[in-house]
Amino acid sequence: MRTTARFGEWAAETSRDWPAACLKEARLCLIDTIGCMLAGSVEPASEKVVTTVAAWGTGEATVLGETRRLPPPFAAFANGTAAHALDYDDVLDPAMAHPSAPLTAALLALAEEEDRSWDECLDAFLVGFEVMARLGEAMNLAHYNNGWHSTLSLGAPATAAAVARLIGLNAAQTASAISLATSMAGGSKQQFGTMAKPIHAGLAAKNGFMAARLAQSGVTAAEEAIDGPWGIVAMTAGEAAPGTRVIDEKLGGEPAISEYGAWRKLYPCCGSTHRPIDALLAMRAEEGLAAEDVVEVEAVVSFAAATNLRYRLPQNVAEARFSLPYCAAAALIDGRVDTRTFTAEAIRRNDVLALAERVTVTRDAALSGTGAVSETPERARVRVTKRGGGMCERIVSVPTGHPQQPLSEDALKTKFLACAARSALAVDAEAIWRAVHGPPGVGRVAEMMRHIQVHH
Amino acid sequence: MRTTARFGEWAAETSRDWPAACLKEARLCLIDTIGCMLAGSVEPASEKVVTTVAAWGTGEATVLGETRRLPPPFAAFANGTAAHALDYDDVLDPAMAHPSAPLTAALLALAEEEDRSWDECLDAFLVGFEVMARLGEAMNLAHYNNGWHSTLSLGAPATAAAVARLIGLNAAQTASAISLATSMAGGSKQQFGTMAKPIHAGLAAKNGFMAARLAQSGVTAAEEAIDGPWGIVAMTAGEAAPGTRVIDEKLGGEPAISEYGAWRKLYPCCGSTHRPIDALLAMRAEEGLAAEDVVEVEAVVSFAAATNLRYRLPQNVAEARFSLPYCAAAALIDGRVDTRTFTAEAIRRNDVLALAERVTVTRDAALSGTGAVSETPERARVRVTKRGGGMCERIVSVPTGHPQQPLSEDALKTKFLACAARSALAVDAEAIWRAVHGPPGVGRVAEMMRHIQVHH
Repeated sequence: MRTTARFGEWAAETSRDWPAACLKEARLCLIDTIGCMLAGSVEPASEKVVTTVAAWGTGEATVLGETRRLPPPFAAFANGTAAHALDYDDVLDPAMAHPSAPLTAALLALAEEEDRSWDECLDAFLVGFEVMARLGEAMNLAHYNNGWHSTLSLGAPATAAAVARLIGLNAAQTASAISLATSMAGGSKQQFGTMAKPIHAGLAAKNGFMAARLAQSGVTAAEEAIDGPWGIVAMTAGEAAPGTRVIDEKLGGEPAISEYGAWRKLYPCCGSTHRPIDALLAMRAEEGLAAEDVVEVEAVVSFAAATNLRYRLPQNVAEARFSLPYCAAAALIDGRVDTRTFTAEAIRRNDVLALAERVTVTRDAALSGTGAVSETPERARVRVTKRGGGMCERIVSVPTGHPQQPLSEDALKTKFLACAARSALAVDAEAIWRAVHGPPGVGRVAEMMRHIQVHH
Repeated sequence: MRTTARFGEWAAETSRDWPAACLKEARLCLIDTIGCMLAGSVEPASEKVVTTVAAWGTGEATVLGETRRLPPPFAAFANGTAAHALDYDDVLDPAMAHPSAPLTAALLALAEEEDRSWDECLDAFLVGFEVMARLGEAMNLAHYNNGWHSTLSLGAPATAAAVARLIGLNAAQTASAISLATSMAGGSKQQFGTMAKPIHAGLAAKNGFMAARLAQSGVTAAEEAIDGPWGIVAMTAGEAAPGTRVIDEKLGGEPAISEYGAWRKLYPCCGSTHRPIDALLAMRAEEGLAAEDVVEVEAVVSFAAATNLRYRLPQNVAEARFSLPYCAAAALIDGRVDTRTFTAEAIRRNDVLALAERVTVTRDAALSGTGAVSETPERARVRVTKRGGGMCERIVSVPTGHPQQPLSEDALKTKFLACAARSALAVDAEAIWRAVHGPPGVGRVAEMMRHIQVHH
């Protein structure tokens, strides 16, 4: 059976009876992403997307942080962009991607349109998460390291599957939705550090949404779109990738969200900076390392991380999120990395930039660029040379917030409230938190949106 | 200078004073494409796109053959899909793509919205045509033969450039529009023979339109999106492709529409079938070859053609357009290939299918799969074995309708009127023909749309 058909059959027919731990994890993904949307809604990329699409008509779907309401696919576009605008939204390791930004943006728009419950939304989220994880296992690391920004390239078909599930498409329609979404799924990491990067998450949401609605209208597409000779595996990952057998083996077994979880980020910058930041903050907190004692910082990171972090000294805030020298210097000087680290003023500080000049980034030759994700776990080694010749060195494999070292619910709530406070529209953040955490069987998405439409 | 910037500067600043022959050729492209839109508007893919997007709001842009009016990007989506639904729309050799379907669909929507003249529209069309041709020269044949459907993958950035020109974006904005469009430009030839194929042309129109409007709103994107280490040349064409130097060399010189022209198609099926069809129709007309005398047909075609034509016996009309055995058998039996060749009834005829069984397609090993387009001109060799042992053989390099053997204006008008007659809404075809052919300086696009909104 072709992979689109396999995904379609599974997505249409798998049980809605998910383990409680999976549903709990999905709720945390949704609330964390809604926070990121509120925080990101005031960023330039998000505002410009809303300005643009608002010219094409109004609708009934909520844009978080905005009074304007849009047609559902455009609300998904705007909210998906906002969710990723600070690079603060969660990460799914095997996909090398941000799963919840596109999935949540599309599902909120659809759930509001069709007055769906949180239970239905969580179920559809888990379907999309699964498709994204299994596609990632089949295609990464080769796909990602070939330059594809998998938040869009894998996010669009995964979102199509999630939306198809929530609409209730049958197996064949779902397969067509996924196939169509592969035609709406470009996107290069060349865009990292530009407004186009968060826009990729918005496009994944919009495109997955549109693909599912097109399939619902009866549009059909090639079954071979994933695993054919010109399928996305062959065209964008190639022979170095594990291939689709892993999908056949794993789909229907332990859910990906249980196997992998989601890495909910502590710092609003590229995930590839987090391990070095953790190392430096730990040296500072635990070994008393002071910024003024630092002669040199050497960070040794994976190929994926080294190529993601291509800005030495940032010209703007977007680039700062992808500049390890900047992030490392700010961590050492400020003792924290948060939204205050990424402002036009913060990135121009002379002391930070002077220290950033003394940060080098090199590639860890031991980490493969194309094998399976599981064969090449990420790590970062950071060595600091101090005045007088002393050294500190740390290796970080599991960054803070990663499923193996998750943020506590208190830490998540602190992040959420800080994110919600950035919204231009005052929102009832506590009510949103409660709505998404409501007990099983309780609540509908449209009800929560009322707490988001609170005006100043 | 990076290629996006080079295109941006040229597209924003090149003279509007095009040679008369270029403008004439552009008019023929537009009218031929408008005919294809009207003819294709009744096809399932087009109707399903309109049904889907109509749920997301109304607007003022005309959908050809439809009473519903849509927001401009969705009208571009619908009209672009319709233009390509019969695979009857024109071809640009170096791009290995259909240029006018996405360009015309996007420009009509924008010109109607902003009440632009035909002169402005032709100017913008020529800008988009140029970008598509030069991108194609830089990336093909490798890009196309890697599986990319360049009507979308090159069509989206080319359309962004055309729309940017018509809006009047500056050089930097145009560069951003083109860069953004590369993130909206997936699409595999795996979709050939499905509804997704014409939808690719619609997506190119919609995406190019959206990218230009986003750039107008101030969205910026990576300058390196074409020629960077993770630019589309490296990611989708690779080292076998000629590369972007050809763009630097040619942009601003002889316009691509003068250098290459457009191949306006005589048969409503995959361009890769046209040379063999020409050969067989010529044998029939000039050598008296009769279908009942044919024992076997051997067609030897390029790698690109052989891989495009992957359906032996078609299961449906969409596949029939990509089945050389079917097209060849129909040509021999009917003595013509036109819209009547591609109906559910026609493709089930026993005599045609029996003859199709005796058609073989093999690859011409002498034609390279990855070099520059100009190094490997297409050709097809067709050998027919007759009862009694006689043979006919023809080699066709230039198919009918190709710029080197163009359709006469009478033949184009015959095609146009037949296409317009397929529209579900009666249209004033003569008035449309006249409007697009109006003398320089005369007429606005919105005026023509009145002739399209004629009801039964």
